[in-house]
Amino acid sequence: MLQINRQWIFSQVPGPGPIKSSCFDYQENNLSELKDGEYLVKNKLLSFDPTQRMWMQADTYIPKIPLGSVMRSLALAEVIKSKNKKIKEGTRLTGLFGWQDYSIRNGNDVFPDVHVPEGVSDEAAMSIFGLTGLTAYFGMKSIGHVKKGDVVLISAASGATGSVACQIARLEGASKVIGIAGGQKKCDWLREKAKVDDVIDYKSESILDQIKKYAPEGIDLFFDNVGGATLDAALVNLKLGARVVLCGAISAYEGTSDPAIRNYMALVLKRASMKGFLFSDHLHLMEEAISKLGSWVESGELCFEVDLQSGLENAPETLQRLFDGKNFGKQLLKI
Amino acid sequence: MLQINRQWIFSQVPGPGPIKSSCFDYQENNLSELKDGEYLVKNKLLSFDPTQRMWMQADTYIPKIPLGSVMRSLALAEVIKSKNKKIKEGTRLTGLFGWQDYSIRNGNDVFPDVHVPEGVSDEAAMSIFGLTGLTAYFGMKSIGHVKKGDVVLISAASGATGSVACQIARLEGASKVIGIAGGQKKCDWLREKAKVDDVIDYKSESILDQIKKYAPEGIDLFFDNVGGATLDAALVNLKLGARVVLCGAISAYEGTSDPAIRNYMALVLKRASMKGFLFSDHLHLMEEAISKLGSWVESGELCFEVDLQSGLENAPETLQRLFDGKNFGKQLLKI
Repeated sequence: MLQINRQWIFSQVPGPGPIKSSCFDYQENNLSELKDGEYLVKNKLLSFDPTQRMWMQADTYIPKIPLGSVMRSLALAEVIKSKNKKIKEGTRLTGLFGWQDYSIRNGNDVFPDVHVPEGVSDEAAMSIFGLTGLTAYFGMKSIGHVKKGDVVLISAASGATGSVACQIARLEGASKVIGIAGGQKKCDWLREKAKVDDVIDYKSESILDQIKKYAPEGIDLFFDNVGGATLDAALVNLKLGARVVLCGAISAYEGTSDPAIRNYMALVLKRASMKGFLFSDHLHLMEEAISKLGSWVESGELCFEVDLQSGLENAPETLQRLFDGKNFGKQLLKI
Repeated sequence: MLQINRQWIFSQVPGPGPIKSSCFDYQENNLSELKDGEYLVKNKLLSFDPTQRMWMQADTYIPKIPLGSVMRSLALAEVIKSKNKKIKEGTRLTGLFGWQDYSIRNGNDVFPDVHVPEGVSDEAAMSIFGLTGLTAYFGMKSIGHVKKGDVVLISAASGATGSVACQIARLEGASKVIGIAGGQKKCDWLREKAKVDDVIDYKSESILDQIKKYAPEGIDLFFDNVGGATLDAALVNLKLGARVVLCGAISAYEGTSDPAIRNYMALVLKRASMKGFLFSDHLHLMEEAISKLGSWVESGELCFEVDLQSGLENAPETLQRLFDGKNFGKQLLKI
């Protein structure tokens, strides 16, 4: 069939600082013919997630991306040809389809392709009902045990995960939700759209002082995506028995700012806990999560933002937007 | 009655580094007469605990020691005169009696005086059945949930709390117990007396390398008394779902070494938790703890060491022994 497949190949492990364009090689290949049991998917949307930087650097919860292979990425794709009886043409799937136009699948991958339900838009499937929205749900509910009356603090609060976490806290009855974000636009959105009670602009305000101001009695639950100085400021403002949910530490991924924390003795004095988690351990809650998030979206109580770039050729620059704090909501790219 | 009461008065908040003798003033006072409801106790043993340095520096889980008052300390004392119907002369009590010969009590203190059971020696009451031994029990059982098959790491393993924690882990069926201590003598004791499987001498070995060597599959449970670089080394060697029990961070109390940790993202990758606790929250388990520890001591399966100094005049120097790592086992001082 000789269809051209444009691909970004992972060619160099990034050093400290921004991901350089030299980390990727662009190439075009001809697609091979489908064998029995295989199906061909065409990418429609690529998902950009901070965890991709970890995949480039080290074996973590999954093996690192091999140099010379297609850059790993979550994507939403449509099945355009199938020699697999279980997979129909026209089906929408999400999966680790990578930075390319097409991929040939056989349904036997370790990270299985997931069907996108009817009625869910591509963008919703890749944000609120995707990795980032579900991460917020699992973290807030299964790890943070958010409950009525909690004072809840969220960092990277306007991000794809943080913005959903903020709203789940509100919808689950938190007495106060405080979001940390960078810049007027993000802070305004949090206040006006996500209906967060108080917002801390880390670009112009002291996180430490503002937490004290907005939560003078301390924080019951901190959902952290940032780490470093942000986490340290939260630690000294914990209430007795507080829970810290470690979702990520984007401040540390670039290797340019010191991720050190020093105030962990607060966990002793406040008999508090700090717990990390990964999306993939909570898939048994997926149905519950999608149903709950779906009903909140439908009733208009939960909103989400998508930052939509376009063109496969712009994939490398789009990834870097996450680390520069340029994305507003879930970072996606339309192919 | 005009009895002389020798006292050490807390006179200056310590700066970074060792506690100087200028932090305390020695004085002698006459004891006043007992009023109805009061009783007079005579200190026999003083307890020295790292937490005392915190009491000198800041309000923590209890208010800091007021300047000009008697230096706060746990002690074991005998009631030598009583005008309180509930308290008989000759009774042994433990309580916050401070660095002095005598104190007048009325039984209404926030931190109540506790009776020492018959058959328990003064030294055992102040070590294995006192704050430090019970802290080890509560931390290992209620926070760490130590269980059969666990690979357990303990820092400050030859200390008053750590040495008991090591042995509880072994007695509760840990598949391997690894202790971190400083110097040949302490390491030998851990191996020979506490029957710890492997010992890391932090004075001559790399903690990081040795944990990897002794626990190639990682640690299930880390009971930490040290913080800083020790905690950081343990974090990168956690097993999936590991528990870190934060008991203290003696490395940080003097303010001279950097308490920073950087590897907390391991809590995410390993879906692990780090939890702090304080002795005083677990007093409902005191009877169970004393009974269990008591039977292990009696059967010879659990041993403990006491580092006994003497003379009230030596109290300030004895406190500093903890931070210099000079004590071997529970630091006590006989008056």
